[in-house]
Amino acid sequence: MFLKILPRIRRPTRSYAAVLAARHEGFAKVMQSDLMAFENFLGQDAVKKDDITNHTTDWTGQFKGPGSVVLYPKSTEEVSAILAYCSKNKLAVVPQGGNTGLVGGSIPVHDEVVISMNKINKQFSFDDTMGILKCDSGFILEDLDNKLAKLGYMMPFDLGAKGSCQIGGNIATCAGGIRLIRYGSLHAHLLGLTVVLPDEHGTVLHLGSSIRKDNTTLHTPHLFLGSEGQLGVITSVTMTAVPKPKSVQSAMLGIESFKKCCEVLKLAKSSLTEILSSFELLDDATMECLKTNLGLHPVLNAPTPFSILVETSGSNEDHDMEKMSAFLDECLSKNLIIDGVLAGSSAEATKMWQLRESAPLAVTRDGYVYKHDVSLPLENYYELTNVMKERCGSLAKRIVTYGHLGDGNTHLNITSEKHNEELEKLLYPFLYEWVVDHGGSISAEHGIGQLKLPYSTFGKDPEERLLTKKLKNIFDPNGILNPYKTI
Amino acid sequence: MFLKILPRIRRPTRSYAAVLAARHEGFAKVMQSDLMAFENFLGQDAVKKDDITNHTTDWTGQFKGPGSVVLYPKSTEEVSAILAYCSKNKLAVVPQGGNTGLVGGSIPVHDEVVISMNKINKQFSFDDTMGILKCDSGFILEDLDNKLAKLGYMMPFDLGAKGSCQIGGNIATCAGGIRLIRYGSLHAHLLGLTVVLPDEHGTVLHLGSSIRKDNTTLHTPHLFLGSEGQLGVITSVTMTAVPKPKSVQSAMLGIESFKKCCEVLKLAKSSLTEILSSFELLDDATMECLKTNLGLHPVLNAPTPFSILVETSGSNEDHDMEKMSAFLDECLSKNLIIDGVLAGSSAEATKMWQLRESAPLAVTRDGYVYKHDVSLPLENYYELTNVMKERCGSLAKRIVTYGHLGDGNTHLNITSEKHNEELEKLLYPFLYEWVVDHGGSISAEHGIGQLKLPYSTFGKDPEERLLTKKLKNIFDPNGILNPYKTI
Repeated sequence: MFLKILPRIRRPTRSYAAVLAARHEGFAKVMQSDLMAFENFLGQDAVKKDDITNHTTDWTGQFKGPGSVVLYPKSTEEVSAILAYCSKNKLAVVPQGGNTGLVGGSIPVHDEVVISMNKINKQFSFDDTMGILKCDSGFILEDLDNKLAKLGYMMPFDLGAKGSCQIGGNIATCAGGIRLIRYGSLHAHLLGLTVVLPDEHGTVLHLGSSIRKDNTTLHTPHLFLGSEGQLGVITSVTMTAVPKPKSVQSAMLGIESFKKCCEVLKLAKSSLTEILSSFELLDDATMECLKTNLGLHPVLNAPTPFSILVETSGSNEDHDMEKMSAFLDECLSKNLIIDGVLAGSSAEATKMWQLRESAPLAVTRDGYVYKHDVSLPLENYYELTNVMKERCGSLAKRIVTYGHLGDGNTHLNITSEKHNEELEKLLYPFLYEWVVDHGGSISAEHGIGQLKLPYSTFGKDPEERLLTKKLKNIFDPNGILNPYKTI
Repeated sequence: MFLKILPRIRRPTRSYAAVLAARHEGFAKVMQSDLMAFENFLGQDAVKKDDITNHTTDWTGQFKGPGSVVLYPKSTEEVSAILAYCSKNKLAVVPQGGNTGLVGGSIPVHDEVVISMNKINKQFSFDDTMGILKCDSGFILEDLDNKLAKLGYMMPFDLGAKGSCQIGGNIATCAGGIRLIRYGSLHAHLLGLTVVLPDEHGTVLHLGSSIRKDNTTLHTPHLFLGSEGQLGVITSVTMTAVPKPKSVQSAMLGIESFKKCCEVLKLAKSSLTEILSSFELLDDATMECLKTNLGLHPVLNAPTPFSILVETSGSNEDHDMEKMSAFLDECLSKNLIIDGVLAGSSAEATKMWQLRESAPLAVTRDGYVYKHDVSLPLENYYELTNVMKERCGSLAKRIVTYGHLGDGNTHLNITSEKHNEELEKLLYPFLYEWVVDHGGSISAEHGIGQLKLPYSTFGKDPEERLLTKKLKNIFDPNGILNPYKTI
């Protein structure tokens, strides 16, 4: 997903976001004595009561919680002290990484204590033979990437928010991104975690290990991937990194039907195989929106119903170029594409990627955007767009689809001049019901947070819901950790 | 790991295996009325009371449990009926896949009811654009591989036991194998599971999904990877497969020191990168053992302290050969290898792989083998061998080391003419303590089962142990599922 850090846009709170749960009266309120206690074991500079809106509002401005205080622990031990104290004193808490999420998962709903991980970013070690990284959870993704680059490695995922998001938050959301098709999800890379539990001891758990293979106990670190900060606070991460590619090639393809896009994907998988690192779709509405709203022009000669951005990452430029050329030739000879451009320079590649990366910004310029991040089986991937076009009719200003086609993940954007009650009623819950009815996921990579809470049970068996509640209860018996959200 | 299906060898039960826990008197004994009930809801042919030793003894002959009855359910519903019945009637059960494990994890310890998954092998579907497989858990790995081959795909892991092991068992052990360095562990591929819980309802859980990305709830399927059949019975698996490589190249390298082996690994990662699919080590003792016990000769001209078998898997033979040649040239020019042979035909490659695959058989010919499957940081990988050589002295007939160096996984084998009490006392618990003290894992890929139970707490925090017990209790509140084992 491309979390381009956009300029802050003021928008009314979306009414389709969760109706906020009432404050749970079982939780205590933060008192002066609590602040003094925090200052006592964290130091005065680690306790902030005023000017905390950058921690109590998300970057889109969509989610705002009053919060109460922000704490900046500097170590696992300090997180443990905080959680032990809050547990004993029934204070609800919300852990927060880079605050780059899109669903309000790390924003307080009421007066929860915000535990910022910003200062937990000291420990870093890397085994450059095995490619194993161990680091504090507050490290910013881009900083890790820069450190690894010097050692010939890189992080196995890339996000638009990489300049702000933190590795602990990436784990908690099981972040996806544009290279999942090549390097797999974070499950492919996670080896170990240090987490602190919100119990009266602030129990510190060292889970997993720092070696590649370990089958000596339950693989509990993986339960934290996508847990959205509701099971424990992650303070340290051990995972594999991947060798930095020596050659990255990009090509833009013009395609006349969605069916052919899928055929091209199949061909890319079988002929680019080990070097295929991105397969991104932009439909004609996206291209039109980029042109109208941002003045960005397509790289292909003539407009086509669909554009596909293919990227390869490999260790030998000649080989990669040869594979890519052969792939494009085959696409043409099989009449799968109308047009195709292979980037001849990094400037040309940048131009292609600018189109894909600017799409989230372009849609916001329409005024108001109903954004979606859903997964679907390929046969239904673009059908959703067509169904919504028909349903919304002229109520929608634009219906724009781009996304990670290679992962079955579509970012469908429905725009209007301003917030429109009538349009919204057409959209929800219809859209999410449709996705679930067609075997899809209502949140491919952003999570549930506050935004999708009303729909989080769609398609879930009651038995599965019960299981997640029981699991939550083991880790967080008092329910003080990130309350009012998914579980 | 290479689970070559060896001829059954009669051996005394190893005394270093777990001292068997006494039968838990809280469990009921299987009565005639239970057999009638099973026959009633499964059919007569699905209940077997006699001639069940192939289910109550493991393939090495090392683990034997009396068992009581073997059930052959044909569907998730039948597994549910069995578990509901056994739960209500306090009958302990052990789920069993292909019975190819090496630690006795799927063998009854006392009179547990064996639930064989042999008949749960009907449902199979494959999406050949997204590469997503959904199948019953009783499918044999090789059968899946053959089905996928026709569609241009393959399973992302390969085991010597592939002709007998089942995908459900592979998930339950989080099987590794020789291509983990290329395709990652099963965590990289698992998407969804159907599991049946051992509760009074025989609750059926559909966990995860059949799409590539889904961030709508806890990622519970991953908790079953490596759970050794102690949380629930897996009846269906959804996972990704990988495109079948069009070119597979193999090379054998002769190297004079372990340090240089590590340097060669680092070079392979940076220059073969995306096509590197195996990096296996065989030391000189392995080669000597292969020659003496099986008459197999090395492919290199002169003996070297270490041999490395490198395999690449890619989509373009010319490119792969060129990369491999360049890699070998660089190894030679940097003086990292003494000798190197690139297989010029599949017959030559087979000869190389025969050495690696025959190593487990070769060591058994010495008489008695103390086998090990441990992970270590690379700096301690071969140090373990040297430490054990010094410690065992002439008590050991041979100390043979082979394994997946690329994953830090060593299969250290210590042989003697016959079971030797004095040698055994030197080995245990020393060896496992040493591994844990050096940051390693006492079971890299085989699991704990019965074999490593006495050592399963080594290096684990009490908090981690408590967590796994609590998790077990959620899934199996009566503790009837695969008792007397890890958790």
